[in-house]
Amino acid sequence: MGNWRDNLRKVRAYVPGEQPKVNDIVKLNTNENPYPPAPAVREMLAWFDTDQLRKYPAPEADKLVKALSDEYEVPENMIFTGVGSDDVLGMAFLTCFNSDKPVLFPDITYSFYDVWCELFGIKYETKKLDPSFFIVKEDYFCENGGIVIANPNAPTSIEMDPDDLEEIIAKNPDSVVIVDEAYVDFAEHTVLPLVNKYENLLVVRTFSKSRSLAGVRIGFAIGSPELISALKNVKNSYNSYTMNTLTVEAGVASLSDRAYFEETKNKILRTRRHMATRLRELGFYYPKSSANFLFVTHNRIPAKIIFQELRNRKIYVRYFEKPLIDNYLRITVGTEEELDKLVAALERIVSKYV
Amino acid sequence: MGNWRDNLRKVRAYVPGEQPKVNDIVKLNTNENPYPPAPAVREMLAWFDTDQLRKYPAPEADKLVKALSDEYEVPENMIFTGVGSDDVLGMAFLTCFNSDKPVLFPDITYSFYDVWCELFGIKYETKKLDPSFFIVKEDYFCENGGIVIANPNAPTSIEMDPDDLEEIIAKNPDSVVIVDEAYVDFAEHTVLPLVNKYENLLVVRTFSKSRSLAGVRIGFAIGSPELISALKNVKNSYNSYTMNTLTVEAGVASLSDRAYFEETKNKILRTRRHMATRLRELGFYYPKSSANFLFVTHNRIPAKIIFQELRNRKIYVRYFEKPLIDNYLRITVGTEEELDKLVAALERIVSKYV
Repeated sequence: MGNWRDNLRKVRAYVPGEQPKVNDIVKLNTNENPYPPAPAVREMLAWFDTDQLRKYPAPEADKLVKALSDEYEVPENMIFTGVGSDDVLGMAFLTCFNSDKPVLFPDITYSFYDVWCELFGIKYETKKLDPSFFIVKEDYFCENGGIVIANPNAPTSIEMDPDDLEEIIAKNPDSVVIVDEAYVDFAEHTVLPLVNKYENLLVVRTFSKSRSLAGVRIGFAIGSPELISALKNVKNSYNSYTMNTLTVEAGVASLSDRAYFEETKNKILRTRRHMATRLRELGFYYPKSSANFLFVTHNRIPAKIIFQELRNRKIYVRYFEKPLIDNYLRITVGTEEELDKLVAALERIVSKYV
Repeated sequence: MGNWRDNLRKVRAYVPGEQPKVNDIVKLNTNENPYPPAPAVREMLAWFDTDQLRKYPAPEADKLVKALSDEYEVPENMIFTGVGSDDVLGMAFLTCFNSDKPVLFPDITYSFYDVWCELFGIKYETKKLDPSFFIVKEDYFCENGGIVIANPNAPTSIEMDPDDLEEIIAKNPDSVVIVDEAYVDFAEHTVLPLVNKYENLLVVRTFSKSRSLAGVRIGFAIGSPELISALKNVKNSYNSYTMNTLTVEAGVASLSDRAYFEETKNKILRTRRHMATRLRELGFYYPKSSANFLFVTHNRIPAKIIFQELRNRKIYVRYFEKPLIDNYLRITVGTEEELDKLVAALERIVSKYV
């Protein structure tokens, strides 16, 4: 009796990045944008007719798809939307990876790829980065059931050479190649134009970083009409209404103000340059960043100690206790003021230990 | 070459209930609430500090959970939230139904139960309703891997005898019993108090019907702390951030105004009584409704014809072309004004065919 417990699914416990409830901390641990979303979002909310909310949302978020189509100059039937890029990626794994061969992705990359594979029973194999954390393109030229490349990669912040990435796509016409461009707005190159050349390419993006809308959950994918149609079919087969009406409106409002988008992005890129210089002066090394964070290691002090010391000073950064990267910290690019606080704290920490 | 298509998942195409874009129709096809959400929702949006949106939402929607805990007088660790009750139900199937024995539910019920079973590879077996569309409790006393009962059931609108439903729960201590109470606010009985007596009971609810927030996507489940914890673990293992910040705030705002909730609910119950009387006068039969819709059949005219005739007059109702129920229509209870329009149209249709 009481054996209902036996049938519960057991999973690896996952602890999401901390969202502390106090306000006086400097939060550089989850790669959020330090600037508010476009003012048009506030305006939309202020005037929103809440009577609309009694109705189910449009299942395919048509209004948002239309706005994305205008912004990225791709037809609407090449766009799929979801509740953050996690939702889009999960759906893409479920839809596109149904082979007996393993799906390939780097051993150091976004931590949910292996989780989704396990959830959906997808075989996978990870490929080592080189000692400088670069993706080795030749590793992806073997037989496989699919490929996932985060570009820029996380938590390394490194962008692949665009020709190398295209070579991976071109050499795998029998697999869907997912390029996760969560951080691409802070990078130099996108593979987006290649969706017209390769029907097996799916580019995934998010509003959480460059558009300051992590709290609203918007992700999208762009790919060939056939690929997008397969995604929609799978999604609609078991949950029609996921993108809620306010989310769709917030996304549309954000896309309406390109100047604001460019302005905040450029502020972050400027602070990233300052941050790189100042951290180097303090004895930190890092790969050249193409994202809104730096992946740093110190020449004398272990990352774990710096992590804890910063935390004691109410500055939160991300530390991964994992092989190969356990002497690194991932630090989000915040405002100039937050950078000043970070540097001041690091100066004290360095002078304490070195 | 180009064999990436071979690995795409094939699914049954699903067409969600129509969301027409024109405004002059009478929309009684998706059981939406005819009244706007609580005024507090509008107020919340008008004053919302959009800077919050740049941050990820609280992964467990704490603020909403707290408000639900107050409203339903259950501890916070007995509450799980999701993106509509579809999300909550899907997650519950994935978490709770991992047995070799089949999960049981009625043959006529919410159409997504078998879809989720197929998606997650869960064995299932449907049990026939009796000829009056009532659930036969004895059918659920055999060995099984789980049980799902929508109460009131959809599309029949019928509520089970509460003692019979408790008997099903009590006789199945080795299975999780999910009671889907999407329509319960329009019914007489809830099994909610039983969560303190049966650890294997999970009660699922939604803000889409009685709270006029279908467009915002809020569902929740209440059950024993152990069951809720299992749900949270599975959910967090692959997608931490699903309930967005605006959704959480809209839910909290809705819960803040109990008087408005009661008022709109009572208006719907009153119109349901009027609707029942007037449709009976026109020759319709239906089970006694415990939901915000009537499940009707006409004594002379086939349902499909009435469906099409209503549609021609811009009145949308739901018709299911399925065995046993293909002579029935599911008609949402709208406003009194919508009822007048419905009755006027039906009068013309009846006089045309009878």
